[in-house]
Parts: sequence; structure tokens; C-alpha cells
Amino acid sequence: MSTVLAAGAAVVDFVFQLDEAPSRSEKHRARDAAIVGGGCAANAAVAVARLGGQAILAARMGDDVIGDMILSDLEKENVDCSLVKRFEGRRSSYSSVIVDPDGERSIVNFRDNEIDFGGSWLETLDLPAFDVALADTRWPDGARVAMQAAKKRGVPGVIDGEAPVREAQVALDMASHIAFSRAGLHDFVGDDDTEAALRRASEETGAWVCVTEGEDGVRWLDGGVMRHLPAFKVTAVDTLGAGDVWHGAFALSLAQGKAEQEAIRFASAASAIKCQRFGGRSGTPSACDVELFLKENS
Amino acid sequence: MSTVLAAGAAVVDFVFQLDEAPSRSEKHRARDAAIVGGGCAANAAVAVARLGGQAILAARMGDDVIGDMILSDLEKENVDCSLVKRFEGRRSSYSSVIVDPDGERSIVNFRDNEIDFGGSWLETLDLPAFDVALADTRWPDGARVAMQAAKKRGVPGVIDGEAPVREAQVALDMASHIAFSRAGLHDFVGDDDTEAALRRASEETGAWVCVTEGEDGVRWLDGGVMRHLPAFKVTAVDTLGAGDVWHGAFALSLAQGKAEQEAIRFASAASAIKCQRFGGRSGTPSACDVELFLKENS
Repeated sequence: MSTVLAAGAAVVDFVFQLDEAPSRSEKHRARDAAIVGGGCAANAAVAVARLGGQAILAARMGDDVIGDMILSDLEKENVDCSLVKRFEGRRSSYSSVIVDPDGERSIVNFRDNEIDFGGSWLETLDLPAFDVALADTRWPDGARVAMQAAKKRGVPGVIDGEAPVREAQVALDMASHIAFSRAGLHDFVGDDDTEAALRRASEETGAWVCVTEGEDGVRWLDGGVMRHLPAFKVTAVDTLGAGDVWHGAFALSLAQGKAEQEAIRFASAASAIKCQRFGGRSGTPSACDVELFLKENS
Repeated sequence: MSTVLAAGAAVVDFVFQLDEAPSRSEKHRARDAAIVGGGCAANAAVAVARLGGQAILAARMGDDVIGDMILSDLEKENVDCSLVKRFEGRRSSYSSVIVDPDGERSIVNFRDNEIDFGGSWLETLDLPAFDVALADTRWPDGARVAMQAAKKRGVPGVIDGEAPVREAQVALDMASHIAFSRAGLHDFVGDDDTEAALRRASEETGAWVCVTEGEDGVRWLDGGVMRHLPAFKVTAVDTLGAGDVWHGAFALSLAQGKAEQEAIRFASAASAIKCQRFGGRSGTPSACDVELFLKENS
């Protein structure tokens, strides 16, 4: 089984659906609510596991009841949490996500800045075998350790290039693949057009680079040639976690030995299916769902 | 020790403090956050326990992790939770409370409407001895059972008269004391002036009635005569749960055999102290705090 090591954020989201737009100093009754695990790395790890891979999560948490909730959910999803470190007396991250009737989301996130940002504890561990490392920019030093380990093993190291990207500069310089969001690419190289920006990012990092642009699909450089895969046409009901599903599916595809173009197609299908389902990452599809979707949409 | 039976809501609030007013479709990082137990009856029960009484809570919850959090907190506060019923496969109530820099609160609450609203399961239990029953209008049939049990025992039955009040009509008709909020009194008798409204509420219910008006203090009818206790002058930093502390302290005072006027004074002091402390009901004072405050403010 192909294994992905995912390093970064693991949180829990309290998601409320409202029938009206929320307003200041008022009390609203939610039409529905859900407690959904979140965080870039954790969502990607769940995607890897659901899509038939083995996911190992490296993350930092507090030793509180919120941390218990996060871990218990990840374990139900068959994510290997042996590289999760819990910090004594510290608090895990959680968010309030308020979704109004137009699908607009207002997110308020809490994180405990007293948890050590360093990744050296991860470096000292005897890491298990893996086929691809994936990291986000929310935990730059963890990303560094993950990319370093991938390089040492001679396997792909993928960065989810979300702003602020420069904070993870050391990791970027070691990555073999960087998948920018539109905002991440803009943050990284300034306000060039997409093609020029991708070329600059490629030159600077030496990595294979792409940019995921939601409804506008994915653009990437293929041996110096600009390529584009349009997005699958779906009716999105909830985009929460869709980007993370994309990164998990992309990393897993590389781990399975697929070429980048095929990996992009698989990841875009997985992400499109997720967007059609309410409830954050709980809407992550299985490998079978994606195969069926690709058959129906080719 | 004087015992108060409190029937009604028990929830948990996820409270986020922001440095800016929250806006739609944006992501905010909270300056601080707290997980605080809430719900009218639960807050009042905690106040009773902290103020030196024995509190028994009757409430409905799901058998989920949120329910575990609520109960574990109440047990730490020495609230007797033997009359809490947990419903299989159902979900407990929780809220997101976003406090902006001006102290304005935006609350979004979820409750599982699949939990049976009936109170007959409480009626069939062999209720322990108590000196006062307190109930809110959020669980009308539970309020009915609590008021009925108080009447049968010949002890005071106090209703926290928050809108919508008429839903708890049966309970109101059995109550010996009703403490309306301003909105609750308005909802109950329409838009009369306060004195006329209180007289109409008194005539209709036959109960002792008062209205708590926050910074404007408390007004009540004393043998047909309108009385007023101004609020204590404090700098409020967080009013979350202050009304519930008032009701718990008022009910406990009656349970201790105090007259209404003295109970109002004690409750208003307890509530004023709470307003000076951040963190919802975690700022509920002890009996000693209240005595000191009353000495300093008389």
C-alpha cells in the first residue's frame, strides 16, 4: 500500500448552518450543525486513507478534550497518528465556521501560540517508511523536516503552497512539487499573470509547480510548456476542505507512481466530489467514487 | 444545606475573542478562546453550588462527546447531575459565541430538536428533597414538572421568565415567583409600561413578580406597591450568564429563607460581580465574594 506522510495542521471545526446572514450582537438558532475534523494536513491524511492509501499524520496538539476529539475522529478514519505530539498543559486548535444561506463562510479560528512551533522533535524520531511527504505552510518547521526526510529517501516532497508561503521557505527549497493556491502563488511571487508567476516560482524553487484555481481548474508547467485542466462541472454545496482533499489525492497518486497529469486529474475529481457534499471533510470520496466519477465525466 | 432543583438548558459555549468585528466570508484568528459551560439552568446550578448551596440539575442531553464535556464541567462545579437524562443517538446543545472588541456578542446556537421535549420521564422519578425549584422557559414541560413538584412539597417555585414566555404557560400558572427579563415581560403582556405590565402579570399568574432590567436594576411588586433596587455600579466586561447567576442566587436565597427584597439584593450583587469577570459562568462568585461586595457597596 502506498504511504503518504502528512505534516501540518489538525483541528476541529464547529460548523453551523444558518437560514439568515449572521449579524453582530444577535442570537441565532442554527438550522443544523456539525462537529467536523479539519486542518490541512489532517484533511489530506483522511483523503489519503479514504482513497485507499496509508496516511501517517505528523502534527502538534494540546493534551485537552479538543485534542481527544481530533484524534478519536482521525483514528476512526484509519489515519496513523503515531507522529502526533501532544503538548502538556497546552490547547488544541478549533474553529467556529458559520455558513450562511448563500454558502458564504465566516471562520474564526483559535490556536495556542504557546505550543512550540519547532519541528526538531519530529526530526529526532525514527520515521516510518513512506512514498511521498506532504506538508502545508501552517507549520513551517514541520514542513522542513518532512521535505528533508523525503529528499533523504529519494521520494517526492509536496508542498501545499497557501499564503503566507515565504514562512516555509526552507521547506519550499527542498520540495520536489509545489501546488500553489491562487492566493499562495500571488503571495509568493507578486502580482504577475499566472503563467509568468508559475515560471518564476519554478525558476526560484527548481520544483515542479502548479496552481489550483477552484472553478478555473489547474494550471501547471510541463517541461516549460503551460498546461491547463479545466475543473469538473459540479454544483458546489460545501467547499470546506476541498483543497486539502485535492492535495491528499495528488500526493497519493504520486505515491502510487502516477505521472503529474494523471495525478491532477484524479485529485481534481476527488475534490469536485467533495464539493457536492455538505460537512467538510466528512464528504471526502472513496477511490471507487472517484473512478466512477471519472468514467461518467470523461 | 439549602437545596435548589434547577430544570432547563445545559449547553457548552465556544467563546472566541476577536480584535476586529467579524465579517461575512472571511477568516479571522481569535486573540483568545475559551470553552465555557452554559445554558440557563446549568449556569444557575453552578451559581447555587458556588454560593454555598446544593444544586440538582434536571436536563436533557445527547449521549455525545459534547454531553460528556458539559457533564464533566458541571461535576467539577459540584452540581448534582443525577437528574440529567441522556438520549441515545441524540446530540447535545452547543454554541459559538464571538465577542468583538466592543464587547458585542454574536451567538449561534445549535440544539437537536429530535430530543423529546416532554418532561414525563422526570415526573416518574423519585425526586430528591429540595427547598426551591427553579426553571426556565426553554424546556416548558420540564418547568411544568419542576413547578408541580415544588407546589406539592409546599416550597417556592421560581420561573426565569425569558421570551417566549407563553410556551411555559402551564408552569407559570403553578409558579410562586416569576422573575421576568425586560423582553420576557414585554413578550408576556404586550407593550405596557413596566408597572402596568408587572401588575397585569401578577394578576394573571397570582405569583410574586419582578423584572430584571440589567443596568436599570430590578423592579418588583411588594403587596401592590412598586419597588425598585438600582443596579450596583460596575464596569461590565462580560455579561454572558449574568442573568442566570441572578436567578440561581435569587432561588438559593429563598431556599435559605430570606425575604424577596434581601434575595434581590444578594442576587444583584452576585450578578454584578460576574459582569466584572471575563469567561461566562466561570466568573460566578462565591458567597464570600458577594458578602464582601455588599459590605463595600452599601
